[in-house]
Amino acid sequence: MSRTEPAADLAALVRPGAVAIIGASADPTRIGGRPIAYMRRAGFQGAILPVNPNRAEVQGLPCSASVAALPQVPDVAVIAVPGAAALQAVEELGARGTRFAVMFTAGYAEIGEAGAEAQAALVAAARRHGMRLLGPNCLGLFNAATGFYPIFSASLEGGLPLPGRIGIASQSGAYGTHLFAACRNREIGTAMLITTGNEADLAVADAIGWMVQDDGIDVIMAYAEGIQDGPAFAGALAEARRARKPVIVMKVGRSAVGSAAAQSHTASIAGNDAVFSAVLAEHGAIRARSTEELIDIAYAATRRIYPVPNSLGVITISGGAGVLISDAAEAAGLPMPPMPEEAQRRLKAILPIASPLNPVDCTAQAFNDLSLIGRFTEAMIAEGGYASILAFFTQIGGAPSMAPAIRAQLNAVKARHPDRLYALSVLASAERNRDYEADGYLLYEDPARAVIALDAMGRLGASFSESPPVPPPAGAPVRLPDANPSEAEAKRLLAAAGIATVPEAACADEAAAVAAAESFGFPVVMKILSPDILHKTEIGGVLLDIGDADAVRRGTATLIGRAARHAPSARIDGVLVARQIKGGVECILGIQRDPVFGPVAMVGLGGVFVEVMRDVVFRRCPFGEDVAEAMIRAIKAAPLLTGARGRPPCDIAALARMLSRLSVFAVQAGPRLASIDLNPVFALPEGAFAADAVIEVGEGRSVGVSRPAATP
Amino acid sequence: MSRTEPAADLAALVRPGAVAIIGASADPTRIGGRPIAYMRRAGFQGAILPVNPNRAEVQGLPCSASVAALPQVPDVAVIAVPGAAALQAVEELGARGTRFAVMFTAGYAEIGEAGAEAQAALVAAARRHGMRLLGPNCLGLFNAATGFYPIFSASLEGGLPLPGRIGIASQSGAYGTHLFAACRNREIGTAMLITTGNEADLAVADAIGWMVQDDGIDVIMAYAEGIQDGPAFAGALAEARRARKPVIVMKVGRSAVGSAAAQSHTASIAGNDAVFSAVLAEHGAIRARSTEELIDIAYAATRRIYPVPNSLGVITISGGAGVLISDAAEAAGLPMPPMPEEAQRRLKAILPIASPLNPVDCTAQAFNDLSLIGRFTEAMIAEGGYASILAFFTQIGGAPSMAPAIRAQLNAVKARHPDRLYALSVLASAERNRDYEADGYLLYEDPARAVIALDAMGRLGASFSESPPVPPPAGAPVRLPDANPSEAEAKRLLAAAGIATVPEAACADEAAAVAAAESFGFPVVMKILSPDILHKTEIGGVLLDIGDADAVRRGTATLIGRAARHAPSARIDGVLVARQIKGGVECILGIQRDPVFGPVAMVGLGGVFVEVMRDVVFRRCPFGEDVAEAMIRAIKAAPLLTGARGRPPCDIAALARMLSRLSVFAVQAGPRLASIDLNPVFALPEGAFAADAVIEVGEGRSVGVSRPAATP
Repeated sequence: MSRTEPAADLAALVRPGAVAIIGASADPTRIGGRPIAYMRRAGFQGAILPVNPNRAEVQGLPCSASVAALPQVPDVAVIAVPGAAALQAVEELGARGTRFAVMFTAGYAEIGEAGAEAQAALVAAARRHGMRLLGPNCLGLFNAATGFYPIFSASLEGGLPLPGRIGIASQSGAYGTHLFAACRNREIGTAMLITTGNEADLAVADAIGWMVQDDGIDVIMAYAEGIQDGPAFAGALAEARRARKPVIVMKVGRSAVGSAAAQSHTASIAGNDAVFSAVLAEHGAIRARSTEELIDIAYAATRRIYPVPNSLGVITISGGAGVLISDAAEAAGLPMPPMPEEAQRRLKAILPIASPLNPVDCTAQAFNDLSLIGRFTEAMIAEGGYASILAFFTQIGGAPSMAPAIRAQLNAVKARHPDRLYALSVLASAERNRDYEADGYLLYEDPARAVIALDAMGRLGASFSESPPVPPPAGAPVRLPDANPSEAEAKRLLAAAGIATVPEAACADEAAAVAAAESFGFPVVMKILSPDILHKTEIGGVLLDIGDADAVRRGTATLIGRAARHAPSARIDGVLVARQIKGGVECILGIQRDPVFGPVAMVGLGGVFVEVMRDVVFRRCPFGEDVAEAMIRAIKAAPLLTGARGRPPCDIAALARMLSRLSVFAVQAGPRLASIDLNPVFALPEGAFAADAVIEVGEGRSVGVSRPAATP
Repeated sequence: MSRTEPAADLAALVRPGAVAIIGASADPTRIGGRPIAYMRRAGFQGAILPVNPNRAEVQGLPCSASVAALPQVPDVAVIAVPGAAALQAVEELGARGTRFAVMFTAGYAEIGEAGAEAQAALVAAARRHGMRLLGPNCLGLFNAATGFYPIFSASLEGGLPLPGRIGIASQSGAYGTHLFAACRNREIGTAMLITTGNEADLAVADAIGWMVQDDGIDVIMAYAEGIQDGPAFAGALAEARRARKPVIVMKVGRSAVGSAAAQSHTASIAGNDAVFSAVLAEHGAIRARSTEELIDIAYAATRRIYPVPNSLGVITISGGAGVLISDAAEAAGLPMPPMPEEAQRRLKAILPIASPLNPVDCTAQAFNDLSLIGRFTEAMIAEGGYASILAFFTQIGGAPSMAPAIRAQLNAVKARHPDRLYALSVLASAERNRDYEADGYLLYEDPARAVIALDAMGRLGASFSESPPVPPPAGAPVRLPDANPSEAEAKRLLAAAGIATVPEAACADEAAAVAAAESFGFPVVMKILSPDILHKTEIGGVLLDIGDADAVRRGTATLIGRAARHAPSARIDGVLVARQIKGGVECILGIQRDPVFGPVAMVGLGGVFVEVMRDVVFRRCPFGEDVAEAMIRAIKAAPLLTGARGRPPCDIAALARMLSRLSVFAVQAGPRLASIDLNPVFALPEGAFAADAVIEVGEGRSVGVSRPAATP
């Protein structure tokens, strides 16, 4: 099934009028019993239809003996019966017109070949009836708004979700419910959870796509191990950005160890992790580095304030904490501009021992005069103009003797400036935290975590307000040869796409060599040209620094003479004359076909920068020159290209043009293109030239054809 | 005052028989009232002696009108009166024999010149009487064991510290009490807090040194902005390592922004941050990247299990979380070796869908058979031999229907293997967490945080069991010239210390040049030698690749001829012959005198690696060749030295010898040495040679003479 179609309409899945439980249990702690118990506890208003041949009643509800005996057609069926019975249920439910099956049943693709066949049979049965599947081997979903809980997670034992506007889309059921429970522990509300398990049909991309459409959801948390359908996933991220809904993603398998673990227990294709990060960056989605960071950022996003541009003003009662926060802001790249000088003078006049720069430190003197907090914070917004405010009040903000007055001070400022993001680092009781929370402050005990979350809000704002990148020109069709092309063929193919290789010419005689050299400009490199001499340097068949026409003539004679002497039987076609590139910076440009996301371009500096430092930048193809230039500037060693160490700056525009054209070439070449390496590419003060080119042709592969299993 | 003396004896400071409060207040929320209120609440058994000329009684205690009127000599006095009165109190208390003053009073060095003078007067008065000062501008201290709370932090309003064996040594009072309160919020106990404020006398090093001696403390948290006395600080860290007490440090000012903020509000010398990190690494102290990490690691250390070598076994019910943990372990560098194959087969036989590699995933099947958890965990220790076990059970571990059985399963394993570190990632109620905690498990909601803490335990273990590095040979005395030496002079000084520079010789004539070249080996470089020719290359005065004796003779004539032609009036001293270094890797070795820690050596790869990548390693001088080699191997780009990209490996031993000798030279040169740059140093397959040397001579500076202010 292609994933470029519009996002699946999951309205009936998350808001059904009736739900059947196939394999309903009277025990509310059993897999087939939990959904019923949870839905009754949550007050689900639709019909709950237990199915179990051995019971007339389940948890107080009338129970049908079979799908055929159901008193009405359920919109959704939860399937909690083993293998053969599950397939039969899908057939029968499909035949009756049920639109969605939530398949708890495990033992499919996640256990190997036999399971994969059983899974294919399930999918085929569902498709015959136009029924969509969630799972198999999934934990289910919930939609808190309607009290709909077709889920068997024990996390609901601890209580239902708190009201909130965060949605969770997770391949892993255990991790998805862990996220939900961790949010509840922090008193953060969650509206919806969809776990996708083996993704035989519906995938995380569908869940994200639906949450983008759902008016009850503002922020999306996603968890993925391996994406099967790259275009669908990228499409869902693009939709989310258009709707200004942040997507914050945990993707495991970042490390070599992690990738191995992922492969040992799932059938997932572990897509290149750096490529995955590049796809997120392309769409302004945020990749969280830890679960805590994932929740911290999603929580901040529930305020729906995405400042452009972002800046951080810090008010503190501790100089030390101010420095700690400054360190964190610099590490995150969140600007902390100083207060205007006039404002600094004014604050100094109010409190001579204050440090009014930013962090603004109103010192322990705030103990004696809490109005300092209000006056200083007001000045930071009115005069400093900060978009985000972080206040470090630690236990003072929680002390019964001071907290109410601090809250009043801050609330007065906030009422005047409701468009700012306010975060507090306080140590307070749960009750007091609830008060601050109700006032609209973001609460983080550790101020460094607040900094990361506030910075993410600015990055989201920048992404939401960015104009979409200019698409590159379509490019000419590329016809790849049947086998890997030679270097010369590769260069010809690339040159036809406007990718500059080092100018060179095969010259049959002295006169042609002189003409070629004069057309390139001196100095040139000369090489013996013979299909029979592979290692030219060994016979002295390469001459460097040929400076004028006379030297070309002498060089031709020298090369032919050496060939005659050292390789008397070799066929000699003449000499190769190439422009000699001097100076400049060695780069690598490359393409690799990612099995999930298609052709991906890479750029980096040559040699050790790629091999030791892994200092490279990736992006899905195709893209225009603006994007290419941004990629080049994102290389850590980019200062070498822009003029560090007194070098002349390289022609970034030419390099960006080459990179963009290479990305277009990769798309035009189609799925048979496996990889391209341009290594080295010389970035010169004027121009950029590929000195070598390798194109690898592979088997044509389409993406998204297999639907492997997820981890539970 | 020199800091190389033994750590201060603070017994009377933290366990006094009597404490006076100068400026006692009847209001328990005032600065002079809080210590009394807290001590009475905590049941302090010593005498509390309020002093206030306006009251006969304070908070129910008899109050003295003056220091002179005190009924007994207090061991400690809290001083909470302003400037002049504070100085008078110090004088009077000192005269009566009080041994320690805890000075809350602010307005000293932290506010500038005038304050610094007042502070000097305080210190002078105290010294006259042999009294030690904590502060001024400090928040005080507490010793929970004796209920002694000479502190005015509002954090005690929220409750006294929980019993525990962590000590906190903090320059900043606000941050120190924030740490204490954050620990209490997480139900982690703290035995002692000492805040040092302006550090006019006692410093963080003294507090650490005392906590090393205190039997009630196992783990030390420290916070510093700027260390004034490097040797004292390093000495305290060395003592802690000898006593096997971990020191976990938060040091702010890591960023450029942070350093600026630190300087704007304190008089601290912001020592080079990388040097500070190097000093911690040298002593096995751990630098936390955030407050949360600081607490996470200190908490783990309270188990006093420091595995050598460390290895992580992960038991999980979620494959996804297992991958996430594998990612975190790889990022931290914590090994996760696989289970032995035989054990894997056995676990597969128990549960065919298990993933037994490590992470060991017992899957959602654990829901149905909780004994899997016990059996699998037992196998991980008995057969896998892991030193640290991390169990990811998320909300299952908190679910009332399952938690008791899980606890019983784990406890049985733990009873058999009490020497392992056990961490749980569970989402549970506070009560249930307390149960797990009482059983001895470390609890982290986010498993990635658990990984970092467990890894730190291994690093501590390695540090505690490491034999002290071999001290380098003492080295010959170095006599620096009065002004900066010329390159030749610098090279002579270094050569005398055994530091190999590129062999070169000034040769008056052809015969001397030939002899020199033959002694170095060919090829050589030849240069014209003239005090009047500064830019030798401009007159063709440098010849490369001189390959034999004849070429040396011709070269001598050529150089002298060119000099005569292009610079007829120049005095010609002959020619310089130098060994020509080809190939090898360019390195930089350097020394800088850190104002706090004295001479510090630096090593890195040359060019962009230093200038763009900042890929360098620091270490206090002096050190032996083993340490030098470890430094070289710690450079990120070290693979270039050890044979990456098909290069021949460089002579690391020779480079390490040079670095160690340079560190000895720096110490021998004394405080007048400001810096040394050996750039480039060529590391060759055999040998390493400095091609250039710059020695900068500065003013002699001793360290630790100023005692600037801290932030409150």
